Amino acid sequence: MNFHKMHGLGNDFVVVAADRLPDDPCGLAQAVCDRHFGVGADGLVFVLPSERADVSMRIFNADGSEAEQCGNAIRCVGKFAFEQGLVSRAALTVETRAGVQRIWLDVSDGRVGAVKVDMGPPVLEGPKIPVAVDRAPVVDHPVTVDGRTFAVTAVSMGNPHAVVFVDDAPTFPVTEWGPKLEAHPLFPQRTNVEFVSVRRPDEVDMRVWERGVGPTLACGTGACATVVAGALTGRTARAARVHLAGGTLHIEWDEGTGHVFMTGPAHTVFTGTWLAENAMRAIRRYV
Amino acid sequence: MNFHKMHGLGNDFVVVAADRLPDDPCGLAQAVCDRHFGVGADGLVFVLPSERADVSMRIFNADGSEAEQCGNAIRCVGKFAFEQGLVSRAALTVETRAGVQRIWLDVSDGRVGAVKVDMGPPVLEGPKIPVAVDRAPVVDHPVTVDGRTFAVTAVSMGNPHAVVFVDDAPTFPVTEWGPKLEAHPLFPQRTNVEFVSVRRPDEVDMRVWERGVGPTLACGTGACATVVAGALTGRTARAARVHLAGGTLHIEWDEGTGHVFMTGPAHTVFTGTWLAENAMRAIRRYV
Repeated sequence: MNFHKMHGLGNDFVVVAADRLPDDPCGLAQAVCDRHFGVGADGLVFVLPSERADVSMRIFNADGSEAEQCGNAIRCVGKFAFEQGLVSRAALTVETRAGVQRIWLDVSDGRVGAVKVDMGPPVLEGPKIPVAVDRAPVVDHPVTVDGRTFAVTAVSMGNPHAVVFVDDAPTFPVTEWGPKLEAHPLFPQRTNVEFVSVRRPDEVDMRVWERGVGPTLACGTGACATVVAGALTGRTARAARVHLAGGTLHIEWDEGTGHVFMTGPAHTVFTGTWLAENAMRAIRRYV
Repeated sequence: MNFHKMHGLGNDFVVVAADRLPDDPCGLAQAVCDRHFGVGADGLVFVLPSERADVSMRIFNADGSEAEQCGNAIRCVGKFAFEQGLVSRAALTVETRAGVQRIWLDVSDGRVGAVKVDMGPPVLEGPKIPVAVDRAPVVDHPVTVDGRTFAVTAVSMGNPHAVVFVDDAPTFPVTEWGPKLEAHPLFPQRTNVEFVSVRRPDEVDMRVWERGVGPTLACGTGACATVVAGALTGRTARAARVHLAGGTLHIEWDEGTGHVFMTGPAHTVFTGTWLAENAMRAIRRYV
């Protein structure tokens, strides 16, 4: 199996072009994403043909679960599809489990740098996020875990996010509180959790606990949810730079369309060929 | 730059054949070993020509420091050298910074499975390990850090090891005590630290804190030091299976030669081509 190892702000993926999904994409993702016995990645991404868009993407997390979509992965998919010749235009559509998304490639000398993504409108109705609060929007909702109460703003960008504003995101103990909020009964399908502090209305710091993954360097949909939550609560403008551990994204919640647009980089670090037999044998001994 | 991604018991390496070292092997190792922006590995290994042996190896850790040698890496080097056609015999010599080592390959259908390594004699004189105790051997020496006293047996296998016997190695808080022992003034060049519990005289569990790296799934020279320390203190026989987080090694401290022999597996997970320009750009933004 040939692959490209790519990342968007350090949120890293093994990207594979295929005609269809393999028989056991969940098991393959667990083997491939293992950082010692596999290739090592946050997720395994398949770029597939689509009847509804220019290409289709499916993303499987390191724990084998499937993600509806991922804002960092879709930028990598755009770069991969263009540079591999799967598409030839700089404006294209990508089918995800959360629907068809539009992206725009910044192409220079045949190479793709930044990618802008139409992330669609945020979903703000509690039952649709889903969050067990029958209200829209769910803003600064008090959630108590282990005796500490957080004001949670819930936003779905195709996947659920709980945005919590804190004093200083870069030093916040994400690994302590992230898993507790992820598993809180308020979120029937669990949730991604963003801890955010505001520098200025157009500039914030964010740290993320990703559902089914843990702390990661960046989460594109989380950055979108962050600016939506900031705008809803008056803490930020509708456009802001979001600084993550892995770098910076520019997010705009467009007033005209109601859609969220995310612009950020995508990089290819190396290309590789996965020797499946060896790897699977190694994994079996590991488990 | 073409490479093989290999591992010995989950202690994983990017292995590269080259005519000579690159200009900045330390910086390259830091970039390549980064698990989100690089290939991701515990170390970068160069397989080079040698005037003293069949091949030469140099190994650079993820933090850029150079290792004298590494028992898991040398097994990977043996497999790599044979399968890449750099050598054609199943018994060969490998030059390391700790001297020339002999290894034997278990070859089947042109592929290398287990590799046996002559790790040489252990160094037991305090000043040569080095440890700041002018005695040989340094056995169950009391070392106090943060109010807790450990009985340390010091052994060099080309690199320094502090072996500590504990009640239950698999559950021992390695990340809490490993760095404190590594940095203790008793060890002028710092030290690797092994936490070991004995199941039977010929079977032990071991967890390792590697100098300059942190906790890893396995450390070949640490497993050797463990059986030497076990035999010196009467806790184990001279031959034992050592169970590590990443798998099992067989270690024998041969009575006739005084040398330590280690037998264990080596695996190739994938082959790749590093796109240096992209990767270095990514690293710069990350730092």
